[in-house]
Amino acid sequence: MSTITVKNGIDVHQLVETINAISEDPTVGAFTFRAKSSWKGGTHNLGEIAGFSHAGSENQSRTAPFVLEGDEPPVLLGANKGPNAVELLLQGLAFCYAVGLVANAAARGIEITRMDCEIQGDLDVRPFLGLDGPRPGFTRIRAKSWVSSPNATHEQLEELYRYVQDTSPVRDCLVNPVPVETALEVVRSEG
Amino acid sequence: MSTITVKNGIDVHQLVETINAISEDPTVGAFTFRAKSSWKGGTHNLGEIAGFSHAGSENQSRTAPFVLEGDEPPVLLGANKGPNAVELLLQGLAFCYAVGLVANAAARGIEITRMDCEIQGDLDVRPFLGLDGPRPGFTRIRAKSWVSSPNATHEQLEELYRYVQDTSPVRDCLVNPVPVETALEVVRSEG
Repeated sequence: MSTITVKNGIDVHQLVETINAISEDPTVGAFTFRAKSSWKGGTHNLGEIAGFSHAGSENQSRTAPFVLEGDEPPVLLGANKGPNAVELLLQGLAFCYAVGLVANAAARGIEITRMDCEIQGDLDVRPFLGLDGPRPGFTRIRAKSWVSSPNATHEQLEELYRYVQDTSPVRDCLVNPVPVETALEVVRSEG
Repeated sequence: MSTITVKNGIDVHQLVETINAISEDPTVGAFTFRAKSSWKGGTHNLGEIAGFSHAGSENQSRTAPFVLEGDEPPVLLGANKGPNAVELLLQGLAFCYAVGLVANAAARGIEITRMDCEIQGDLDVRPFLGLDGPRPGFTRIRAKSWVSSPNATHEQLEELYRYVQDTSPVRDCLVNPVPVETALEVVRSEG
């Protein structure tokens, strides 16, 4: 018996096994992700994304960290050595929609041949600069995706896309409040 | 007369001029940032951050786009070709705190010699996989910064850090809801 287990590049067999494993033991669904940054001068920072914990244990799959440069454009006092913080948020939303779409499509037997995404976010820097204005963050984010499938109807793709939005981790972090606890350790000060 | 205009690598003269320009004409504070992604197969996507609009005009300072790989680790059906979507969110928060801290410190005459940041976020993948569980996004984010300054007191740094949190664009997008409008364009479908 031959079974197709890969669709859209997603191993559907592994996906189903993962869902079953987490159904049996919900602690297998628990992840703690991490990111570090180290200031290099001005608005330039070096970011590092390496390990994460899964079900209480450190995952060992990454042999080297992902290194990201963060910076601002000259109009925001930087030198364009990398994207800025809020652009990374938009990039995260694009990736989230894409992974959600192709994985859920695979689970439903929908073949995807194209998934492009563009995100735009409006931001007024006045509050960041200490001036009166709207909120410090994005006042509005617009996302658009271009999707092709040879074996799903327009309605099936619309329904899939609705589902992807409802279950998107990044979208959830934007449209609903997330508790953020922030601590400072003063390593050295004047007094 | 000699004037020190650079502190912490931030051009304080430009910072003050920027604040004055936006005070006089609030439209100068308006930005629209963008990110694109293009699906490469499975959980792998290629991201691109290039231009942005500022005060209604396209900024031309970036000659080439920043290219980012997005992927999942094997335990989440990927091949670790890049960080995943939610890790980018954490990286954005780290960069945001760092830029906010050194820029506001510069404006206050506080010299910063170290600013490292680590962010952790707890996420349960059950809702993403269609299982009952908590919200799809982070249930909790913890941020910690390590800061050194030779000319500020512990109390001044604590107060600065509090201010940075209150005016952080990325933190605001996490702790407060952001409107996200999502559109789908079906380029090709079965019917």
